[in-house]
Amino acid sequence: MTPEFRLIQRHFARPAPSAVLGVGDDAALLQPAPGMQLAVSSDMLVAGTHFFPDADPRKLGWKTLAVNISDLAAMGAQPRWATLAVALPQVDDAWLAAFADGLFKCAEMFDVELVGGDTTRGPLNLCVTIFGEVPAERALRRDGACAGDDIWLSGTLGSAALALACLQGRAVLDETDLAHCRRSLDTPQPRVALGLALRGLAHAAIDISDGLLADLGHILERSQCGAEIRFADLPTHPALAPMLDMPWARDCLLAGGDDYELCFTAPQARRDAIAAIGTRLGLPLTRIGRITGNPGLALLDTAGLPLASHKAGYDHFA
Amino acid sequence: MTPEFRLIQRHFARPAPSAVLGVGDDAALLQPAPGMQLAVSSDMLVAGTHFFPDADPRKLGWKTLAVNISDLAAMGAQPRWATLAVALPQVDDAWLAAFADGLFKCAEMFDVELVGGDTTRGPLNLCVTIFGEVPAERALRRDGACAGDDIWLSGTLGSAALALACLQGRAVLDETDLAHCRRSLDTPQPRVALGLALRGLAHAAIDISDGLLADLGHILERSQCGAEIRFADLPTHPALAPMLDMPWARDCLLAGGDDYELCFTAPQARRDAIAAIGTRLGLPLTRIGRITGNPGLALLDTAGLPLASHKAGYDHFA
Repeated sequence: MTPEFRLIQRHFARPAPSAVLGVGDDAALLQPAPGMQLAVSSDMLVAGTHFFPDADPRKLGWKTLAVNISDLAAMGAQPRWATLAVALPQVDDAWLAAFADGLFKCAEMFDVELVGGDTTRGPLNLCVTIFGEVPAERALRRDGACAGDDIWLSGTLGSAALALACLQGRAVLDETDLAHCRRSLDTPQPRVALGLALRGLAHAAIDISDGLLADLGHILERSQCGAEIRFADLPTHPALAPMLDMPWARDCLLAGGDDYELCFTAPQARRDAIAAIGTRLGLPLTRIGRITGNPGLALLDTAGLPLASHKAGYDHFA
Repeated sequence: MTPEFRLIQRHFARPAPSAVLGVGDDAALLQPAPGMQLAVSSDMLVAGTHFFPDADPRKLGWKTLAVNISDLAAMGAQPRWATLAVALPQVDDAWLAAFADGLFKCAEMFDVELVGGDTTRGPLNLCVTIFGEVPAERALRRDGACAGDDIWLSGTLGSAALALACLQGRAVLDETDLAHCRRSLDTPQPRVALGLALRGLAHAAIDISDGLLADLGHILERSQCGAEIRFADLPTHPALAPMLDMPWARDCLLAGGDDYELCFTAPQARRDAIAAIGTRLGLPLTRIGRITGNPGLALLDTAGLPLASHKAGYDHFA
């Protein structure tokens, strides 16, 4: 067995009892349950683009899997399996052990089994493909929003972007607030339970990875409709709220990304059912606006007048 | 729509009629046919490790998908879908167009639909996850080899490694031979039809990506058995054959990798059936040795005596 295989074996080969065949062959073998469709998503995280090259490997392991699980949450899918491809500049056993520890902590929390992957030499790059199950015709897609739908948002917005601004010297927070915001940035909590609960209730859903305006924009584009958002109703993170008179802080809120909350639309008749889900999950769910028949995304002030436009969202090639 | 999404849309969003939902949502939705298991594999190709940074993007597009399809061929699976995650140092429209052209040429040849992925900024990195279907209990695994099995190899060995040696100035070939060997290196042909034909015949199979000795070693390890290989029986590529008195040339043959031929084991009683498959596919299938009950891989000369050992195979961290 070559050293490369020993590496994989040591850190990433753990039992995958619900797979027909896990790590160690040319391919893994998976068997979705009868009637289930497989939801599949790939996300690539690159040092210097998505995380600092000296990021804590344990937290990075968590986040690498969590951002992929978040895509399944946004589909209303139950996470099941994942593959991991890693490029590493050199073999660093301690780094790999810590990375694997964080990754498997997230995997255990969300019932995900690692079934395969690849390890190679190169600039640090982490690519997960994640697999979830969802009953046929029950997935939460981006193309189902209807005029008149409420637009909902889970949790709060802006804390991850605020933490990043502090780490980059663009903002200052006290120690307690910074620690709190860093948890959002470093160890996001994908909203899997919410996604499952919204099956049959929500018309459309997306996770906020690139910023509210950009991600809601994807729903509008795929659903061929528009939206009005009430700025004052946005669930701003408390550490960010006092700063909202500054444009960079509004950018954190509207376009910061890395929030991994769910934005979803649902008929007004489902307000009570959705509020009950929020209570059951202990997760704030906030109505932030409504879907309209007019194209475009309007951001309204408290008087219902349009605010100046903001950055559309984080774009890796902007 | 952000520029990043326009990029993806322009080059990679093509119809995926056999997927429930293709590119453009948080996840793709796939539905394997009843009774089918899903074979899943991820391979990451990194500039400078797996290909020259100035590689022809059209050939690179072909190879990126082909090496993944080869993993499915080795499982006896029918390729169906793929996701592609790409990190690019900058937006280069012409490069992306050529890369996509090569990738989709391979996709069309092997009936693969691209159903999702990710595009981000970073050192050039290409990660495909591929999905194939195989009837339950019919996959060609690495762990099924039995003492007494013949060991078979498709095609010829060593041409890709020989082309690489020439490109790196370690060997010299005339123009015709170099062009022929470069085709093996740049646009490998995954042995899908062979993999499908071997269902129910072969006991174990693997594709030769890291070199014969390393890859056959994986079968031996997973099947807990040993092997004897007759050096003189190896199907050496004609351009390499005259050079085999030199150690580097023997390394090309035994440990060169990038061959993407199938190495498989099968009972002696199946020799005629396997020969008939080779004839039907127009693909040479050569018996190169046999599986034994003694651990280890012995390479034998024409007198049946062990030869000196060779490099075990290409290892990205060796």
